[in-house]
Amino acid sequence: MKLWDIYATMKNDVSYIERELERTVVSDHELLNETTLHLLKAGGKRIRPVFVLLSGKFGTYDLEQLKKVAVPLELIHMASLVHDDVIDDANTRRGSMTVKSKWDNRIAMYTGDFIYGKALTLVTELKNPDIHLILSKAMVEMCLGEMEQIRDFFNTGQSVRQYLLRIRRKTALLIAISCQLGALAAGADQNVSRLLYRYGYNVGMAFQIRDDVLDLIGTESQLGKPPGNDILQGNITLPVLYALQEPRLQEPLLKHIDEIRLNNGHSDATKALDLIRYSNGIKIAEQLADRYIQKAMDALAELPNQRAKRNLKDIAHFIANRNH
Amino acid sequence: MKLWDIYATMKNDVSYIERELERTVVSDHELLNETTLHLLKAGGKRIRPVFVLLSGKFGTYDLEQLKKVAVPLELIHMASLVHDDVIDDANTRRGSMTVKSKWDNRIAMYTGDFIYGKALTLVTELKNPDIHLILSKAMVEMCLGEMEQIRDFFNTGQSVRQYLLRIRRKTALLIAISCQLGALAAGADQNVSRLLYRYGYNVGMAFQIRDDVLDLIGTESQLGKPPGNDILQGNITLPVLYALQEPRLQEPLLKHIDEIRLNNGHSDATKALDLIRYSNGIKIAEQLADRYIQKAMDALAELPNQRAKRNLKDIAHFIANRNH
Repeated sequence: MKLWDIYATMKNDVSYIERELERTVVSDHELLNETTLHLLKAGGKRIRPVFVLLSGKFGTYDLEQLKKVAVPLELIHMASLVHDDVIDDANTRRGSMTVKSKWDNRIAMYTGDFIYGKALTLVTELKNPDIHLILSKAMVEMCLGEMEQIRDFFNTGQSVRQYLLRIRRKTALLIAISCQLGALAAGADQNVSRLLYRYGYNVGMAFQIRDDVLDLIGTESQLGKPPGNDILQGNITLPVLYALQEPRLQEPLLKHIDEIRLNNGHSDATKALDLIRYSNGIKIAEQLADRYIQKAMDALAELPNQRAKRNLKDIAHFIANRNH
Repeated sequence: MKLWDIYATMKNDVSYIERELERTVVSDHELLNETTLHLLKAGGKRIRPVFVLLSGKFGTYDLEQLKKVAVPLELIHMASLVHDDVIDDANTRRGSMTVKSKWDNRIAMYTGDFIYGKALTLVTELKNPDIHLILSKAMVEMCLGEMEQIRDFFNTGQSVRQYLLRIRRKTALLIAISCQLGALAAGADQNVSRLLYRYGYNVGMAFQIRDDVLDLIGTESQLGKPPGNDILQGNITLPVLYALQEPRLQEPLLKHIDEIRLNNGHSDATKALDLIRYSNGIKIAEQLADRYIQKAMDALAELPNQRAKRNLKDIAHFIANRNH
């Protein structure tokens, strides 16, 4: 089964969320409309709203209520993507200083801030302070994850634990609370929302590990960009950490990573990628992702049988095996 | 009476808020502690918490409750200042690309995001969805104000109305809701919180106009930086708009502003400043600020007599006449 088939069964509701996403970010500000609508049209898997809706099936499914968490969660994800566009490296600035390029960074930043604000405004309509608290805490954790990523750029001495804590904050948490808040907004009982949180957390961890593996082994046509992007940025991911543990590979790999660092990422990643692909790092990382998927399945096993449960199972399988 | 004297009567409570500000932003992340504590130590007038506390006197004054709006409001102000540090102009980047300077922009951005998140987390402890909604709407409006400022950089054709709408969003709104939320968190009645909102809104408008005037007429020792900062950035403020309406001044002033724009702000503002100071722009802007102060006083007049009311009156006078 493809992810698309799961969406097909909930096509109308996902389309409704899509329209609401658009409606929420429209303002009377022309430039903001340009940037936000561009972001929306760029698409994305809308995996967070899908998790909200499927989790909502374990309570009293009410699309109007669920929308008020589904849209904010996707918007928070989008805002974090825009903020990811803010750059520091003056060398990567393109050509001459037109007004547009001059204000790019600030526009990306304020567009993100605006989207965060809109997300929060919509969620407050739920009048459920528990949900507000969970959401704002997650935003804080996401920032910490981003700050840790910056701190750990090119840190080849970091531990696997450090990596896992970082992707927990950066990715897994928002997926976990998508499931949890879907259940809470549908009035599902505490135990159900806890199990769905656990499912989402583990799926999120597997999702990010898979993402990091794909960046190392994917082809340009699968990824839509050349592989090795993470390592050029200095983002040391799980397979790299495992590869660095292999005595024969450690020294040459450290050398290549150091070259990339000294060139501020304006480098060729091929040699480093070859070494990592040659190592056992990819396999061990995939095994860890599989263990997370298994934990997600264990959480699901305790939930009542229904179509949404099968769908969540299919999504977990899709995530573990996706090639893009 | 100096602002300091007003603070003196509420010294203990302001000190408590100061400690809580610090406690709220401390994390287990070393770099974040560095940036946030640096921001806190840099000081600031803490005018927003003072408005919250004084407005709280019109209801049941409970510092523990008021803290939960006073700290978030000051944090939101601080976060907006950090985000203001994010720059685009590659030319202003200093010297060689150390790791620290390399990540400055992103660190400023994520520090701001983190502080926003912490502010929201604290306010959700109030379990009052109305307050959450007012706060998140204000955040959206502030972003719109910042975006408008970017859009209107060097726009010498903008109207006074455009300027007023922008400073309303950028500054006045947050001060207005500081008063409103102080009253709401203290359980004051709707009419009182509405009057305090009106007071805060008008004081906020006067505050920003005065700020913009000071940037044109202040001395370097009063301002802590050379005057003319706004115009070098392309920020066309109220006295400039009025000066541009004077037939004799329009052409030479437009020429000077255009020079600044073509030099991306790496210019001398002296000639433009001389023309603006020579115009009636400063005086007319000050008259408008006085009218806002008068409206703030009118709102106060309807509130019950008590020391907090006299304090709010003193603050309004201080704002209208301050030199720094």
